[in-house]
Amino acid sequence: MGEFELIDRYFRSAAADMAGRGDVVLGIGDDAALLEVPPGRQLVAALDTLVEGRHFPRGSPAASIGHRALAVNLSDLAAMGADPAWCLLALTLPQAEAPFLEAFASGLFALSRQHGVALVGGDTTAGPLSVSMQVLGTVPAGEALRRSGGAPGDLLYVSGTPGDAAAGLRLLDSQHAAAHQLQQRFLYPEPRIELGLVLRGIASACIDVSDGLAADAGRLAAASGCGVSIEVSRLPFSGALLDAVGAAAALQDALCGGDDYELCFTVPPQRKAALEARLANVKCRVTCIGILDESHGIRVIRDGVALLVDTRGYEHFSGKG
Amino acid sequence: MGEFELIDRYFRSAAADMAGRGDVVLGIGDDAALLEVPPGRQLVAALDTLVEGRHFPRGSPAASIGHRALAVNLSDLAAMGADPAWCLLALTLPQAEAPFLEAFASGLFALSRQHGVALVGGDTTAGPLSVSMQVLGTVPAGEALRRSGGAPGDLLYVSGTPGDAAAGLRLLDSQHAAAHQLQQRFLYPEPRIELGLVLRGIASACIDVSDGLAADAGRLAAASGCGVSIEVSRLPFSGALLDAVGAAAALQDALCGGDDYELCFTVPPQRKAALEARLANVKCRVTCIGILDESHGIRVIRDGVALLVDTRGYEHFSGKG
Repeated sequence: MGEFELIDRYFRSAAADMAGRGDVVLGIGDDAALLEVPPGRQLVAALDTLVEGRHFPRGSPAASIGHRALAVNLSDLAAMGADPAWCLLALTLPQAEAPFLEAFASGLFALSRQHGVALVGGDTTAGPLSVSMQVLGTVPAGEALRRSGGAPGDLLYVSGTPGDAAAGLRLLDSQHAAAHQLQQRFLYPEPRIELGLVLRGIASACIDVSDGLAADAGRLAAASGCGVSIEVSRLPFSGALLDAVGAAAALQDALCGGDDYELCFTVPPQRKAALEARLANVKCRVTCIGILDESHGIRVIRDGVALLVDTRGYEHFSGKG
Repeated sequence: MGEFELIDRYFRSAAADMAGRGDVVLGIGDDAALLEVPPGRQLVAALDTLVEGRHFPRGSPAASIGHRALAVNLSDLAAMGADPAWCLLALTLPQAEAPFLEAFASGLFALSRQHGVALVGGDTTAGPLSVSMQVLGTVPAGEALRRSGGAPGDLLYVSGTPGDAAAGLRLLDSQHAAAHQLQQRFLYPEPRIELGLVLRGIASACIDVSDGLAADAGRLAAASGCGVSIEVSRLPFSGALLDAVGAAAALQDALCGGDDYELCFTVPPQRKAALEARLANVKCRVTCIGILDESHGIRVIRDGVALLVDTRGYEHFSGKG
């Protein structure tokens, strides 16, 4: 039996331990997983790959790689307002080393347990380190959040404190206390599942912030056939970000940095009170930072003066691609 | 806009062309796909990764890589008796080159159209060439084929002519006519979806042959709590295989070669006539090659004499791991 077959068995037994879901008819061990989607619900499916050297630096903690592989996909489900249910893992790694695998699995399973997600399939292969994770969830029929439902006048919100992760990645080798907090935000992003569920029936549109707040707010606005303006004075900077990088770099990180995995969403003004009532039970911070309008493109405004304008769309702000 | 964002758009428009399925509520372009599982059906999910240099040789035709990425996953669905419905693609490649991408997409979409599968999500990333494909399908509740349903006395069958693909891979540089046919069997395997559907309600157990017939028959037998014997004289060798490699190597390839993506399944003797009646409408060849018994492990028999015995299980026969 080869080392990779041993690893498969290792994940299989770990998966069996945590698959307390009654909707897994058949998990790891057959040709495919067999799953029950509850009546009246639609299936939500996301697939994202993390490649070493591109999505995380070489030498990243294995627990972080396991955590992030699941987190970035859960974040996509959160943006749809979906309840996560199952995941499948395709892990490619140069060699099978027990310490790496145990740490990877600990990061992955800590997060999957937190959200009640069962690992139901996948495989392990020799090759350059990369992780493809498939996450499946469900949503009541017709209630999924989309990017395209916004309208002029809808208020623009963001969760958490965007910019932290981008700064944390840049400061990954720093020993400063403030940098440590930012590093954790890059290494262990928290998918906003709970917030996504609360936003069903409230938000008119939603997207997860993976490429930077300005770019992703621009994508939401474009999908909704609107323009968007963001008021700089409202941006929620973390104390750690301001301490570690200063105000100018913090603005750049918050608008154009990636890897936040926060939710950016819009709410019609008449549902603002309903939103605030529901947020009382949600742990993560949510801030109104702007508004959709009838133009197109993105305007970043400071005290009523346009700081940056990109009428072509969001491409200009994207730090990726 | 970066080159990889251009590629995403390319796949997005290609996917839009062929997504004629009414059950795709939301395809590529939002945070996740939104899909309708018909009432009374269970979801079937498979995820497999192909890594260059491991699952296909460097320099393989791009059309073959696109075809195989989908085919190996469709084969998993076939082994469950599932109707394929949707797929998500995670493509990692060193650089974005139009000729490679067009050929990759042509191979992928030719097969997806053949089986009515809609590409509903995924992403493209820079990195060492690998392809993770997620395929989703459905099956009437309770009717999925499994590895574990076989019983002593059940007849063992295999589809097609196993061994061709392994020989084709070995002879990939050969110019002989027989080798060409074998090469095609490696480069463009045909997932046995139609056969899988016919086997619902007939086969007691089923597995797809990806690691070699003996290893995978052994896995089916082990999952069913049985032993299995395979009669060499019944093995269906292709003329091309015998021509290209001779009888001894053909036997080795058929039993221990991988990448066949045929179905290996068992049928209780009392359903043999029903199987044969149904097979009249299925194009691919199916051959009875052995039987499950009350022992455990695998016996390969020639004219009543055991040629190879592995009572420990299937590991001995596996060419992989």
